[in-house]
Amino acid sequence: MIAEIISTGTEILLGKTLNTSAFYLTGQLTGLGVEVRYHTTVGDHRERLYNAVQEALSRSNMVVLTGGLGPTADDLTKEIIAKAFNVKMNLDIDSLNSLKDFYQNKEIPPESLKQAYFPEGSIVLPNDFGTAPGVILEKDGKICIVLPGPPTELKHMFEKYALPKLQAILQNNGQKMFVKVLKVFGLTESELERELDDFRQKDVLSITLLDKHTYMDLRLTVRETDEKKANEILAEAESAIRERLGNKVFGVDEESHSLVVGRLLRQRQLTLATAESCTGGLLGGAITAEAGSSDYYLGGVISYANEVKQNLIDVNETSLQSHGAVSELVAKEMAEGVRKRFGSDIGLATTGIAGPGGGTTTKPVGLVYIALAHRKGVLVEKKQFSGNRQSIRNMTVESALNMLRIFLMELN
Amino acid sequence: MIAEIISTGTEILLGKTLNTSAFYLTGQLTGLGVEVRYHTTVGDHRERLYNAVQEALSRSNMVVLTGGLGPTADDLTKEIIAKAFNVKMNLDIDSLNSLKDFYQNKEIPPESLKQAYFPEGSIVLPNDFGTAPGVILEKDGKICIVLPGPPTELKHMFEKYALPKLQAILQNNGQKMFVKVLKVFGLTESELERELDDFRQKDVLSITLLDKHTYMDLRLTVRETDEKKANEILAEAESAIRERLGNKVFGVDEESHSLVVGRLLRQRQLTLATAESCTGGLLGGAITAEAGSSDYYLGGVISYANEVKQNLIDVNETSLQSHGAVSELVAKEMAEGVRKRFGSDIGLATTGIAGPGGGTTTKPVGLVYIALAHRKGVLVEKKQFSGNRQSIRNMTVESALNMLRIFLMELN
Repeated sequence: MIAEIISTGTEILLGKTLNTSAFYLTGQLTGLGVEVRYHTTVGDHRERLYNAVQEALSRSNMVVLTGGLGPTADDLTKEIIAKAFNVKMNLDIDSLNSLKDFYQNKEIPPESLKQAYFPEGSIVLPNDFGTAPGVILEKDGKICIVLPGPPTELKHMFEKYALPKLQAILQNNGQKMFVKVLKVFGLTESELERELDDFRQKDVLSITLLDKHTYMDLRLTVRETDEKKANEILAEAESAIRERLGNKVFGVDEESHSLVVGRLLRQRQLTLATAESCTGGLLGGAITAEAGSSDYYLGGVISYANEVKQNLIDVNETSLQSHGAVSELVAKEMAEGVRKRFGSDIGLATTGIAGPGGGTTTKPVGLVYIALAHRKGVLVEKKQFSGNRQSIRNMTVESALNMLRIFLMELN
Repeated sequence: MIAEIISTGTEILLGKTLNTSAFYLTGQLTGLGVEVRYHTTVGDHRERLYNAVQEALSRSNMVVLTGGLGPTADDLTKEIIAKAFNVKMNLDIDSLNSLKDFYQNKEIPPESLKQAYFPEGSIVLPNDFGTAPGVILEKDGKICIVLPGPPTELKHMFEKYALPKLQAILQNNGQKMFVKVLKVFGLTESELERELDDFRQKDVLSITLLDKHTYMDLRLTVRETDEKKANEILAEAESAIRERLGNKVFGVDEESHSLVVGRLLRQRQLTLATAESCTGGLLGGAITAEAGSSDYYLGGVISYANEVKQNLIDVNETSLQSHGAVSELVAKEMAEGVRKRFGSDIGLATTGIAGPGGGTTTKPVGLVYIALAHRKGVLVEKKQFSGNRQSIRNMTVESALNMLRIFLMELN
């Protein structure tokens, strides 16, 4: 199966946006055993886009297009696909209803209506994060997939809706594929590559690494006609990898770190409260990303100012003065303080220097303390992260969740 | 001047490498006033690469190629360029001497010798970080630039050797592009398109809309030779758009909503504290994304559980019981409570139903109250958002920042 990716987007051609979607999709398709031969980027321009699609269909079996699904006049992709496949545009009732829901009691703007029209024969891919659905169209031995431009919409739609259909299509074309993803925290891409060197590319099993910034996805793919045998191979590989990586594997498939932590808290019937300094609310934000998190998460304090640390979570003034806000002692007092004030079983606290300013030689940017308080005592971890403000804060959140996960796993 | 970029590289088509060079070069070329119309990636494959080069030369004035300059058999770029321009390959004595230097007393490997051969008429671009020089070839009204694949070699060569030559070539063509972005909150893509219908595509000025999920980017682009005139056109367009959209324009270029709010707080020397229910810390997270936010942000309470609302920010038990946690009254008490407890000038609070569960007919998923407390009184806004848990929470954060921004702008 030969594929190519066409990105439409004036943004990319203005040098404002890095084309991460082509990279992402290439990794995904390669993992499915598809050979990607070309990437093309064209602007939102009728003739140029049509020519690019025609050219792609003439030389590849599969064409993946991104972007150009919006309501404005220069959103042309579906229309051009219909022309290239020589089919008409049909109204899709489900999409029309979704649009009606989206606009509630207001009238749907006439130009938005085109988001409910699709090339005849399309499988419509729902968009959970936006109004523009995607398309899979299979005709005359060619597969065309159209995905929205914004990367979060694209990724979610691809993984949730396009991937299963694509796997089914590929299986009908004689390729059977079974996939399991292991999520790994605390190893870089090259460390993980080294760690698993002898596992990679073993006959029918292939292992793909995907860097998710704060963690790694390890995608195990088995090409097999027999499902039972495929699952055996996957299970065997998973258990061998888990044995090697230990508790660095924090979840499988779509599980996030906060989902896994939430499940452990619920199982152990424990409640949690947070005290955040450098993460400024992002830890609470991650925990509450899970529906039903109110079952175990009571809330938290964003103790950005020192007075808040003292008044709301009882950090000692002398600790702040003698050790500084970014210190092991203050981290511990924050965790213990929020646990007591909220009456939770566990208190989890972050304090650090996210930068770009505020670093010193003894306390450089990226220095972070994470503390966990429980009736059995208070644990603290010292971290030195690198990167910009955003990545230091994100790494702090993930590390705090990881610390909590391991604590809960080991708790008797 | 119309250009396109052809990246050769099997790593990119295996999903192993993100194509940052195309992004980098596009930014550089756009800055020179060159219009980049296509990006193409092809593997190191003679026929496919030749076809791509032919196609590019047929439709663009400038073709920039990256990669394929090494000594191995699949490094074909220069040879293919010579064929496409119908010129022979000549030995370049300077490059041969550089190779001799590089290999010092050892013999030059025969396959490396091809790195000293170039299409006739080439300007040779030295490679200070590797053995593969680059090329600029100008012939029959077409410009072809060949740069090495490794990004550090490419960047250095482009900036030090290619850029000055390119600028000299472009001075004869002399067109430039000037860009300004206005950031708009509270209008959908189609509403904004209708609103600005008469502004779009006016001679040298073009307006592009980009949906950023919680807000819209309005990109104004002017093609002009005279920088002063270009800036006048941009300034005039900006002021006309601002007059029409009023305070819906919240920032320009790279400014985020939290940056703008932070600047207003700093200017007015006011401090802020937050009380979050449905956003679970994301509002604090957004505010503290700005370096130096501790100047005005004291912190907040994530009051997920009702007990936390009562104990930490003094929401009345009776208000919770009679009106429920998601209500105008509780939102007001949260904002006022956090303002008093933290001793801040402003308290900002969110409470709502982020879903997917927890909705009722009178309080459906997506219902959110945002309250702002100040010594002058307490304001509250009721919102009904659509979408999933994530987008409801993100829209709540942006709406809270927007409410605060407008309050601060109107404050005497």
